[in-house]
Amino acid sequence: MSLNVTELTEAESWEFLGLQDVGRLATAAASEPEIFPVNYAASNGRIFVRTAPGSKLAEVAVNGKVAFEVDQLGPELAYSVVVKGSAEILEHDDDLVDAEHTGLMTYQENEDAPKNVWLRISVSEVSGRRFVRVA
Amino acid sequence: MSLNVTELTEAESWEFLGLQDVGRLATAAASEPEIFPVNYAASNGRIFVRTAPGSKLAEVAVNGKVAFEVDQLGPELAYSVVVKGSAEILEHDDDLVDAEHTGLMTYQENEDAPKNVWLRISVSEVSGRRFVRVA
Repeated sequence: MSLNVTELTEAESWEFLGLQDVGRLATAAASEPEIFPVNYAASNGRIFVRTAPGSKLAEVAVNGKVAFEVDQLGPELAYSVVVKGSAEILEHDDDLVDAEHTGLMTYQENEDAPKNVWLRISVSEVSGRRFVRVA
Repeated sequence: MSLNVTELTEAESWEFLGLQDVGRLATAAASEPEIFPVNYAASNGRIFVRTAPGSKLAEVAVNGKVAFEVDQLGPELAYSVVVKGSAEILEHDDDLVDAEHTGLMTYQENEDAPKNVWLRISVSEVSGRRFVRVA
Protein backbone atom coordinates (compact mmCIF):
# COMPACT_ATOMS: atom_id res chain seq x y z
CA MET A 1 0.00 0.00 0.00
CA SER A 2 1.21 3.46 -0.74
CA LEU A 3 -0.23 6.89 -0.89
CA ASN A 4 -0.23 9.58 -3.54
CA VAL A 5 0.12 13.03 -2.09
CA THR A 6 -0.67 16.02 -4.25
CA GLU A 7 -0.60 19.69 -3.40
CA LEU A 8 -3.88 21.51 -3.82
CA THR A 9 -3.90 24.74 -5.75
CA GLU A 10 -4.92 27.85 -3.86
CA ALA A 11 -8.33 27.74 -5.58
CA GLU A 12 -8.81 24.08 -4.61
CA SER A 13 -7.83 24.87 -1.03
CA TRP A 14 -10.42 27.64 -0.80
CA GLU A 15 -13.04 25.41 -2.41
CA PHE A 16 -12.38 22.83 0.30
CA LEU A 17 -12.54 25.47 3.04
CA GLY A 18 -15.92 26.53 1.65
CA LEU A 19 -17.30 23.00 1.99
CA GLN A 20 -16.40 22.45 5.65
CA ASP A 21 -17.52 24.23 8.79
CA VAL A 22 -15.27 23.11 11.64
CA GLY A 23 -11.58 23.88 11.94
CA ARG A 24 -8.91 24.33 14.58
CA LEU A 25 -7.34 27.67 15.31
CA ALA A 26 -3.80 27.70 16.72
CA THR A 27 -2.20 30.70 18.38
CA ALA A 28 1.26 31.40 19.76
CA ALA A 29 0.91 34.35 22.10
CA ALA A 30 4.04 34.57 24.30
CA SER A 31 5.34 31.39 22.61
CA GLU A 32 2.58 29.44 24.36
CA PRO A 33 0.73 27.32 21.82
CA GLU A 34 -3.02 27.11 22.14
CA ILE A 35 -5.48 25.28 19.95
CA PHE A 36 -9.24 25.75 19.72
CA PRO A 37 -11.84 23.84 17.74
CA VAL A 38 -14.13 26.38 16.10
CA ASN A 39 -16.98 26.72 13.70
CA TYR A 40 -16.00 29.00 10.84
CA ALA A 41 -17.10 30.47 7.56
CA ALA A 42 -14.81 31.12 4.62
CA SER A 43 -15.77 34.10 2.48
CA ASN A 44 -13.87 36.23 -0.04
CA GLY A 45 -10.50 34.90 0.99
CA ARG A 46 -11.06 35.44 4.68
CA ILE A 47 -12.00 33.20 7.59
CA PHE A 48 -14.66 34.25 10.09
CA VAL A 49 -14.99 32.82 13.59
CA ARG A 50 -17.40 33.72 16.36
CA THR A 51 -16.54 33.63 20.02
CA ALA A 52 -17.80 34.91 23.35
CA PRO A 53 -16.70 38.25 24.81
CA GLY A 54 -13.64 37.85 27.01
CA SER A 55 -12.97 34.30 25.84
CA LYS A 56 -9.46 32.94 25.88
CA LEU A 57 -9.73 32.49 22.13
CA ALA A 58 -10.39 36.20 21.63
CA GLU A 59 -7.61 37.14 24.06
CA VAL A 60 -4.83 35.11 22.46
CA ALA A 61 -5.85 35.42 18.82
CA VAL A 62 -6.14 39.16 18.63
CA ASN A 63 -3.48 41.05 16.75
CA GLY A 64 -1.36 37.99 16.52
CA LYS A 65 -0.40 35.41 13.95
CA VAL A 66 -2.64 32.40 13.76
CA ALA A 67 -2.62 29.07 11.97
CA PHE A 68 -5.91 27.46 11.04
CA GLU A 69 -6.43 23.89 9.90
CA VAL A 70 -9.35 22.04 8.35
CA ASP A 71 -9.24 18.41 7.39
CA GLN A 72 -11.37 15.54 6.22
CA LEU A 73 -9.91 12.11 6.67
CA GLY A 74 -11.40 9.03 5.09
CA PRO A 75 -10.04 5.53 4.50
CA GLU A 76 -9.33 6.13 0.80
CA LEU A 77 -9.02 9.86 0.49
CA ALA A 78 -8.01 12.66 2.81
CA TYR A 79 -7.70 16.41 2.61
CA SER A 80 -5.99 18.89 4.84
CA VAL A 81 -5.76 22.63 4.36
CA VAL A 82 -3.67 24.94 6.53
CA VAL A 83 -4.05 28.70 6.51
CA LYS A 84 -1.67 31.24 8.03
CA GLY A 85 -2.67 34.78 8.78
CA SER A 86 -3.51 37.29 11.43
CA ALA A 87 -6.70 37.67 13.42
CA GLU A 88 -8.56 40.76 14.48
CA ILE A 89 -11.78 41.43 16.34
CA LEU A 90 -14.33 43.18 14.16
CA GLU A 91 -15.57 46.48 15.54
CA HIS A 92 -16.81 48.50 12.58
CA ASP A 93 -20.42 48.17 11.54
CA ASP A 94 -19.65 47.44 7.90
CA ASP A 95 -17.23 44.67 8.87
CA LEU A 96 -19.84 43.17 11.18
CA VAL A 97 -22.45 43.26 8.43
CA ASP A 98 -20.01 41.41 6.16
CA ALA A 99 -19.39 38.84 8.87
CA GLU A 100 -23.06 38.29 9.64
CA HIS A 101 -23.76 37.79 5.95
CA THR A 102 -21.73 34.60 6.14
CA GLY A 103 -24.61 33.11 8.15
CA LEU A 104 -22.13 31.43 10.48
CA MET A 105 -23.73 29.50 13.30
CA THR A 106 -21.69 28.06 16.11
CA TYR A 107 -21.93 24.56 17.45
CA GLN A 108 -22.38 26.00 20.87
CA GLU A 109 -25.33 28.38 20.67
CA ASN A 110 -25.88 29.33 24.26
CA GLU A 111 -28.26 32.10 25.25
CA ASP A 112 -26.42 32.59 28.53
CA ALA A 113 -23.08 33.18 26.83
CA PRO A 114 -23.72 34.45 23.31
CA LYS A 115 -20.80 34.26 20.92
CA ASN A 116 -21.30 37.72 19.58
CA VAL A 117 -17.66 38.62 19.07
CA TRP A 118 -16.43 38.15 15.52
CA LEU A 119 -12.86 37.31 14.63
CA ARG A 120 -11.67 37.74 11.09
CA ILE A 121 -8.52 36.06 9.84
CA SER A 122 -6.76 37.89 7.05
CA VAL A 123 -4.99 35.12 5.19
CA SER A 124 -1.39 35.48 4.09
CA GLU A 125 -0.80 31.88 3.02
CA VAL A 126 -2.91 28.85 2.25
CA SER A 127 -1.70 25.36 1.47
CA GLY A 128 -3.55 22.12 1.01
CA ARG A 129 -2.86 18.49 0.35
CA ARG A 130 -4.85 15.61 -1.03
CA PHE A 131 -3.94 12.05 -0.05
CA VAL A 132 -5.14 9.18 -2.22
CA ARG A 133 -4.54 5.60 -1.18
CA VAL A 134 -3.40 3.38 -4.04
CA ALA A 135 -3.15 -0.41 -4.13
CA MET B 1 -32.12 24.89 20.92
CA SER B 2 -29.42 25.03 23.52
CA LEU B 3 -26.41 23.02 24.43
CA ASN B 4 -25.24 21.44 27.64
CA VAL B 5 -21.49 21.67 28.08
CA THR B 6 -19.80 19.51 30.68
CA GLU B 7 -16.15 19.22 31.55
CA LEU B 8 -14.66 15.76 31.15
CA THR B 9 -12.66 14.33 33.99
CA GLU B 10 -9.01 13.61 33.32
CA ALA B 11 -9.83 9.89 33.11
CA GLU B 12 -12.65 10.53 30.62
CA SER B 13 -10.34 12.72 28.54
CA TRP B 14 -7.73 9.97 28.34
CA GLU B 15 -10.39 7.40 27.52
CA PHE B 16 -11.49 9.59 24.61
CA LEU B 17 -7.89 10.05 23.44
CA GLY B 18 -7.51 6.27 23.45
CA LEU B 19 -10.48 5.84 21.12
CA GLN B 20 -9.36 8.25 18.38
CA ASP B 21 -6.32 8.19 16.11
CA VAL B 22 -6.07 11.58 14.42
CA GLY B 23 -5.32 14.86 16.16
CA ARG B 24 -3.75 18.23 15.46
CA LEU B 25 -0.47 19.28 16.94
CA ALA B 26 0.14 23.01 17.42
CA THR B 27 3.53 24.56 18.06
CA ALA B 28 4.71 28.06 18.81
CA ALA B 29 8.42 28.16 18.00
CA ALA B 30 9.54 31.80 17.75
CA SER B 31 5.93 32.88 18.38
CA GLU B 32 5.02 31.50 14.96
CA PRO B 33 2.01 29.23 15.27
CA GLU B 34 2.02 26.04 13.23
CA ILE B 35 -0.55 23.29 13.11
CA PHE B 36 -0.18 19.76 11.80
CA PRO B 37 -2.73 16.99 11.41
CA VAL B 38 -1.16 13.79 12.73
CA ASN B 39 -1.88 10.19 13.49
CA TYR B 40 -1.16 9.48 17.13
CA ALA B 41 -1.33 6.87 19.83
CA ALA B 42 -2.10 7.59 23.48
CA SER B 43 -0.39 5.31 25.95
CA ASN B 44 0.34 5.57 29.68
CA GLY B 45 -0.43 9.24 29.84
CA ARG B 46 1.72 10.16 26.88
CA ILE B 47 1.04 10.94 23.24
CA PHE B 48 3.15 9.38 20.47
CA VAL B 49 3.44 10.78 16.96
CA ARG B 50 5.56 9.58 14.04
CA THR B 51 7.11 11.86 11.50
CA ALA B 52 9.76 11.88 8.80
CA PRO B 53 13.39 12.81 9.50
CA GLY B 54 13.97 16.52 8.98
CA SER B 55 10.27 17.31 8.76
CA LYS B 56 9.02 20.72 9.74
CA LEU B 57 6.93 19.03 12.42
CA ALA B 58 10.04 17.54 14.03
CA GLU B 59 11.92 20.82 13.73
CA VAL B 60 9.34 23.04 15.42
CA ALA B 61 8.00 20.58 17.98
CA VAL B 62 11.26 19.55 19.52
CA ASN B 63 12.06 20.82 22.99
CA GLY B 64 9.16 23.19 22.89
CA LYS B 65 5.71 23.46 24.30
CA VAL B 66 2.97 21.96 22.21
CA ALA B 67 -0.80 21.86 22.28
CA PHE B 68 -2.61 18.86 20.88
CA GLU B 69 -6.29 18.61 20.10
CA VAL B 70 -8.60 15.72 19.26
CA ASP B 71 -12.28 16.13 18.58
CA GLN B 72 -15.33 14.32 17.37
CA LEU B 73 -18.20 16.47 16.26
CA GLY B 74 -21.62 15.09 15.56
CA PRO B 75 -25.03 16.72 15.21
CA GLU B 76 -26.19 15.72 18.70
CA LEU B 77 -23.02 15.16 20.62
CA ALA B 78 -19.49 16.47 20.40
CA TYR B 79 -16.25 15.95 22.25
CA SER B 80 -13.05 17.90 22.27
CA VAL B 81 -9.94 17.19 24.28
CA VAL B 82 -6.92 19.49 24.45
CA VAL B 83 -3.57 18.43 25.82
CA LYS B 84 -0.66 20.70 26.74
CA GLY B 85 2.84 19.46 27.13
CA SER B 86 6.30 19.29 25.68
CA ALA B 87 7.57 17.19 22.81
CA GLU B 88 10.84 15.38 22.39
CA ILE B 89 12.34 13.14 19.74
CA LEU B 90 12.95 9.64 21.04
CA GLU B 91 16.54 8.46 20.72
CA HIS B 92 17.02 5.75 23.33
CA ASP B 93 16.32 2.16 22.41
CA ASP B 94 14.02 1.52 25.36
CA ASP B 95 11.95 4.59 24.53
CA LEU B 96 11.69 3.50 20.91
CA VAL B 97 10.56 0.03 21.96
CA ASP B 98 7.86 1.65 24.11
CA ALA B 99 6.78 3.78 21.18
CA GLU B 100 6.70 0.92 18.70
CA HIS B 101 4.61 -1.12 21.11
CA THR B 102 1.81 1.38 20.57
CA GLY B 103 1.42 -0.07 17.06
CA LEU B 104 0.92 3.41 15.65
CA MET B 105 0.49 3.49 11.90
CA THR B 106 0.43 6.73 9.98
CA TYR B 107 -2.08 7.71 7.38
CA GLN B 108 0.74 8.45 5.04
CA GLU B 109 2.83 5.29 4.84
CA ASN B 110 5.31 6.08 2.13
CA GLU B 111 8.31 3.87 1.41
CA ASP B 112 10.15 6.77 -0.16
CA ALA B 113 9.84 8.94 2.95
CA PRO B 114 9.43 6.66 5.95
CA LYS B 115 8.13 8.32 9.09
CA ASN B 116 10.62 6.67 11.36
CA VAL B 117 11.15 9.53 13.77
CA TRP B 118 9.11 9.27 16.96
CA LEU B 119 7.91 12.25 18.93
CA ARG B 120 6.67 11.79 22.45
CA ILE B 121 4.56 14.41 24.18
CA SER B 122 4.90 14.51 27.94
CA VAL B 123 1.57 15.84 29.08
CA SER B 124 1.33 18.54 31.73
CA GLU B 125 -2.35 19.31 31.36
CA VAL B 126 -5.39 17.70 29.80
CA SER B 127 -8.87 19.12 29.51
CA GLY B 128 -11.94 17.90 27.74
CA ARG B 129 -15.47 18.96 27.08
CA ARG B 130 -18.64 17.17 26.07
CA PHE B 131 -21.39 19.06 24.25
CA VAL B 132 -24.90 17.66 24.23
CA ARG B 133 -27.62 19.33 22.21
CA VAL B 134 -30.93 19.59 24.03
CA ALA B 135 -34.32 20.52 22.63
